Order: sequence, then structure tokens, then C-alpha cells
Amino acid sequence: MSAPPLATAEIIAVGSELLGLHRLDTNSLFLADRLAALGIDLRAKAVVGDNRHDLAALFRQALSRVDLVVLTGGLGPTDDDLTRDVVADALGRPMSEDADILAWIERRFASRGMRMPGVNRRQAQVPRGAAVLPNPNGTAPGLLLEAGHRLVVLLPGPPREMQPMFDALCRGPLLERAGAERVQRVSLFIAGRSESHVEELAQPIYTRWTGETPPIDTTILASPGQIELHLSVRSADADGAARRLSEARDELLAALGPDVFSTDGRSMEEIVGDLLRAKHLTIAAAESCTGGLLMSRLTDVPGSSDYVLAGVVAYADAAKTALAGVAPELIAACGAVSEPVAVALADGIRARAGADLGVGITGIAGPSGATPDKPVGTVAIALSGPDGPARVRTFRFPGGRAQVKFSSTQAALDMVRRALT
Amino acid sequence: MSAPPLATAEIIAVGSELLGLHRLDTNSLFLADRLAALGIDLRAKAVVGDNRHDLAALFRQALSRVDLVVLTGGLGPTDDDLTRDVVADALGRPMSEDADILAWIERRFASRGMRMPGVNRRQAQVPRGAAVLPNPNGTAPGLLLEAGHRLVVLLPGPPREMQPMFDALCRGPLLERAGAERVQRVSLFIAGRSESHVEELAQPIYTRWTGETPPIDTTILASPGQIELHLSVRSADADGAARRLSEARDELLAALGPDVFSTDGRSMEEIVGDLLRAKHLTIAAAESCTGGLLMSRLTDVPGSSDYVLAGVVAYADAAKTALAGVAPELIAACGAVSEPVAVALADGIRARAGADLGVGITGIAGPSGATPDKPVGTVAIALSGPDGPARVRTFRFPGGRAQVKFSSTQAALDMVRRALT
Repeated sequence: MSAPPLATAEIIAVGSELLGLHRLDTNSLFLADRLAALGIDLRAKAVVGDNRHDLAALFRQALSRVDLVVLTGGLGPTDDDLTRDVVADALGRPMSEDADILAWIERRFASRGMRMPGVNRRQAQVPRGAAVLPNPNGTAPGLLLEAGHRLVVLLPGPPREMQPMFDALCRGPLLERAGAERVQRVSLFIAGRSESHVEELAQPIYTRWTGETPPIDTTILASPGQIELHLSVRSADADGAARRLSEARDELLAALGPDVFSTDGRSMEEIVGDLLRAKHLTIAAAESCTGGLLMSRLTDVPGSSDYVLAGVVAYADAAKTALAGVAPELIAACGAVSEPVAVALADGIRARAGADLGVGITGIAGPSGATPDKPVGTVAIALSGPDGPARVRTFRFPGGRAQVKFSSTQAALDMVRRALT
Repeated sequence: MSAPPLATAEIIAVGSELLGLHRLDTNSLFLADRLAALGIDLRAKAVVGDNRHDLAALFRQALSRVDLVVLTGGLGPTDDDLTRDVVADALGRPMSEDADILAWIERRFASRGMRMPGVNRRQAQVPRGAAVLPNPNGTAPGLLLEAGHRLVVLLPGPPREMQPMFDALCRGPLLERAGAERVQRVSLFIAGRSESHVEELAQPIYTRWTGETPPIDTTILASPGQIELHLSVRSADADGAARRLSEARDELLAALGPDVFSTDGRSMEEIVGDLLRAKHLTIAAAESCTGGLLMSRLTDVPGSSDYVLAGVVAYADAAKTALAGVAPELIAACGAVSEPVAVALADGIRARAGADLGVGITGIAGPSGATPDKPVGTVAIALSGPDGPARVRTFRFPGGRAQVKFSSTQAALDMVRRALT
């Protein structure tokens, strides 16, 4: 009789540094993604220090609850690295040295002109019955163990070692043991609307889906500068699920309209960059309160030199004049944070850089600089070109300095996107 | 007989969204910090979905292991919010409606001109014997329960509600129940050296400390652009521990010298900003491959308009000439990524902005643009002013585009810091 399919999983991250003030277990996001794709339900995740007793307790409990326990970390060569020992002990499996692994680790050191330190010998210890998972990116091999109908996976902690190892498992042993159902997902990223506004429009739609077979699960998340709708469907019928998800996406697109800027995971700066490239347009920006963040985001995208020409950060009023040609009289008359100055910044940088599009941003990022009629978060954003007069709009963004800066750049990019679509 | 002091704790974060692909439990970093300050040892942390059975199992097990269990999330008004129910049930405490809380929630809604929705009534349910923790920033009150010698704390999930509530506990009931020992900490941030180099210099020093009474615990962490040494000491003698930590910091400072840029938690951009302000100097930058990130980091600091004048992002070669006055012949002769061009960018922006200091950055952030003698990560950085000829240096940074961008800005800021100290 074959084992029942893997339906549930827990993740245990091992390492005292993950209990401190400076590190989070980010491996679990990667693992959650891969488990979901196999239709395996992640029920809980835990972080435990390099402590034999605590790790053993958490491991035994996880194994009593779920079909698959994935442990990351604690496979190194030092006394602090306990995962192998604790799991072998909890499962009652004696360990022995694997000559192949030992030879492989020795060769790895030798290829760098080093002798293997004696401590690394520990990494060649393998519990009885365990399958060894090769590690092309480090010395610690992973391990796969069967415990009755259940599976236990031990992975190294560094992401570049852990990820390819787990991906190989997902194409092999875990895929074979997964059920017929898979989870497929679609995400919609929305700009320019509040979470409650998106929910108001989307909820009547996605509420209907929960009663269908298969149901579509919907999550709404508010991230800085964007609202995200994540749809997922679990089904054994891959084609049917893909068709259903695509219909669901189209229903939401019809309701939310052009506020949806991405349905394929691309970020706002990637979307804008792809639009600029497709239309053979170039862009330049004159930023005040965002201090260069808009240009930095645009240039985060590989290949952005195809369409990003130049930018200026005109923080001081004199710099607005010197670098973007804003008339001092305009600043004196309207104030540095004003729509006319935003337009002058956009027009000025567009002309000076010889770009098709110019963006101007001026505002109050806080905490100081506010006036009674211009509170912190007041930001004027203008877009000049490619044709017609400049568009300009004044926003009131909530939050602290970092949030105002980011929201301003997101709104500016969104103005570019809407102008090009 | 009074209860023994709180020595150990576990954290349980409740919420299915924390098991997904898009969210991590970041509350635990804040809680870890506050627990450490009280000398309470965080033994494990867990994330569990909105599932009654799983939450109950994790809670019971945590309570069997440690003195203090802190739960975050799941205190909202909906059916998915189970934390109150599950904890009351596990501890065998019947719940009843608290008239004061109910009235308070009703007033909170009324103050916004709204009627309290019926579902919010659930948030007024209190297990027998629980102390109610007021929530000035939301509708969900927290709860504190005694379970034998053990304590259970229920906190809302949103950080701005959770944090002030837990801080109040740390000044009151948790402080009273904590042991005499407290943990004090000091951190040193180091730039311009590799992790292994820092370890080579620091390890002989901190290894000695582990044998002392009280021992000093040292953690070395490599973050983008900086190496961090975190020292902590646990002692009932606060003055003695503070003195010992300060001596330890001075020992490391003597060994690591001016590579240590911060001993009080300030970031590189804050350190540089404070130096500029203290010396009444202004700064401007001309950036190519960093695309505005240097200016954005400088202007992340509140009050940076005191010393940041202006910047240009000269991504295209023509922009280097138009915005920073770099001679096209120089670019043709030396290449855009070269020390002479970095110097010309620094001198040019300094002159145009009328700043005391000018920074020029030009390099290859990748993934494209590399040549055989200028691989991805090659970056030339120059600093012009306040006196003498410009300093310039060429770096080879590892990593992808984002890491090269960040490392370049960190190296540029560090050049400014060293020039001013």
C-alpha cells in the first residue's frame, strides 16, 4: 500500500541568531511558496535556538501533527549545529559516517587549496535510512528521512544552499508524494486607491467565488503605495483551475479598471520601464522631498539605462533654480511646495535632459517643514510631456518621512503609467 | 510565597496571513528586544494560522515549557480571531462580557460618528481573572493572565497597537516579575572591512571575555555595507555591567580603529549628517550607477535639508556633461567608469551646487555593461573638497545590482565620514 499524499507541513528554523533582535527567518517565505505550489498546507512555523532540548521538543510535536517537517539550519560543523543529531535521536536512527560525503567535503576544501578542518567530519554523519541531498553551494549536505508515512527534510540555513536543494526535492521525492491537487495563484497590484475602497469594489465579486467548486481563496494586503489582491485556487484539474483563475482576474480587472497596474508580479518601476521601452520614450526627473528615491527606483530595474536619461535632486530652493531652471520669483510667489513649482521642475528637467517625459516632485516629507495649510505629507507631483500641457496633482500622504517619500515616488510612477496607457 | 522570577519566554504570532508568501512576523523582533532588556530568555517563537486546533496545541506546549507566553494577533472582531477563545479554553477560564470595555469600544466608534458593529462585541469578552490592557490605538484590548506561576499575555497584531501596550507591561507587571538580572547591550558598526577581517581582529579580544564574570556575549553579523558586533552582558549589577561593556567597547575600538563608524546605533547616513552639521558643511552628489540612492539615503535623515544642497543623477553620458560639466573628451579618453570621470563628477557637482563637498560615483551595477577589465561591481568613487585635491578610489563590489548600488553608497558615505574625522 502506498503512503497517503502529503497534505500538511510545518517548518522549523534552527539558530539562536534567529531569536535575536536582528534577524528574521526569511527562508520560510520561499518554502511556503514551494509547498503551496505542491498543494501542501503549511500549518505552522517555528524558530528555535541552538538548544538540544527545545529543538527536540518542537520537532517531536511537529512530527505528531503534520505529514512533512522541514528543518532549516543547524547543519554546520560546530558543536552548536544540532539538527542532525536531534532528528536522528528523536527518530531512533543511529548515525554513521558516509565515506562518499566525507570524500566530497575533502575535495571541496582541496579545490580551494585547503585541508578539511577536523570539525567538518561531522557533516558526513548520516542517520540510518536517510537519503543524502547534494549541496553544490556549501559543505553541508541535506537529508531526507521517512518516519512511517511522514517525511522529514533537513536543509542548510543559507538561502543559496537551501533553495536549489529544496527545488530539487520539489521536482522529485516531494512531487511524487504530493497529492493530485496543486495550488495556482494570480496577483493584482493596485495603485491610487485605499484598501477599503478596493475591498468595497472587490468583495462582492470574490465573496461569490467562495461558494464555487473549486473555491477561489482571496487575500487583500496593503503594502506601501499599493494594494495587493492575491487569488489562489487548489485543484487537481490544472487546466480548469488556470481557466477559472484567469476569468476571476478578468472580473476584478473589469471592476477595478486602470487602477490595476500589474497582474504578473512586476513592480511599478518595472511596469513603467517596460512601457517607456515599448514606446521608445525617455524620462528625467527633478525631485525635492523624495531626495532621489524616484530615480533610484527607476534605475533598480536592469536595463533602465535604455530610457532613464538624468535626474536632479533639487533639495534647496537655489538648486531648483540652478539645476532645473525654476524661476526664483515663482518659488517666492507660490512657495516651494506648490503645483506651479512642480510643473516648473518637470518642464525644466525635461528640457535640460532632452527627455520625452519630465517628472517634478516637491513636498513636505516631515517631520519638520509643515505649515497650517501644508501639513507633513503634502506633495505636488507634475508630469511634463510627451504632449499637451503638464499634468499636476497635489497629494496628502499619511505616515512618517520614509512612507511619504515612498508614496510620493509610487504616485509619480503611477502618473507616468496612466499617461502611457 | 512569591512566584519565581520570569526566566524564559516563547512568542506565538497568530494569523494565517503570516504563513503565506508575503508576510513575516516582525513583531517578534520588538518583543525579543524588550524581553532581553528584562533578562528574560526567548526560547522559541512560532507562527500559526487562524486554526483553533493548531493554536491550542502550540499554546499548551509553549505553556508547558516557559514562564511567559506572549501571543500576538487574533484579537479582532471576526470569527477568524480565535486567540482569546483558545487561551481561555486552554486555561479553563469562562469568559464574560466586560461592560467597561464594551462602553469604551462604543465610545471609540461614536467619536468617529459611527455605531459599533455587532461583531465588535466579541472584543469585550474577558476570561475570568484576566487583567485588561488598554489599547489607545485600536479597539482590541490586550489581556494578561496568570496560570499558576506562569504568565500569558495577549496582544493585538498591529505594531502601533502592540508596542505601546507591551512597553506598558514592561514598566509594570513584567518588570515586577522579572529577575534581578538585566541585559545591557552595545553595538559597533564597522565599514570598509570584510567579516573575516573583523573577526580576525576582534575574536582574540572577545574570546577572553567569555571566561569572565559576568561573561560578555558577542555576535558578529554581516549586513549590506557593514559588519556589526553586538555585545551583551547579563547581570544584576547594572552599574558594573555598564562599566564592563564600555571597557569592552573601548578594547574593540582600539583594535578596529577608525573603521568603526557607530557605537550608538546611528546609521552611516545619520553619522555623516551629524558630522556635516557639526562642521557647518554642505554636500552635493553626482551619481551614475547608484541612480540617486546616495542622495535618497542622505535625505532619509530628518533635518538633512540643513546640509544637503543638491544632486544629479547622470545616467547617460550626455547627462554627465550637461548636469555635472564632465568634458566629453574625458569620457571618450578614460571611459565613463573611471577615476578621472568620478573626480570630474565630484568637482563638477560641487562647483555647480556651491557645496563644500562633492561626491562623484560612476560604475557598473550590472547585470549588463561589464567589460573584461571592468566586471560588474566595478565602481569609482570620488570626494571633492573641503580642501586639497579630490580623493578617488575604485572598488569591486560583489553581488547583484541592488547590492552593488547599496555598497557603493555606503563606501561613498564612508569616504565622507573618514574625510571629516
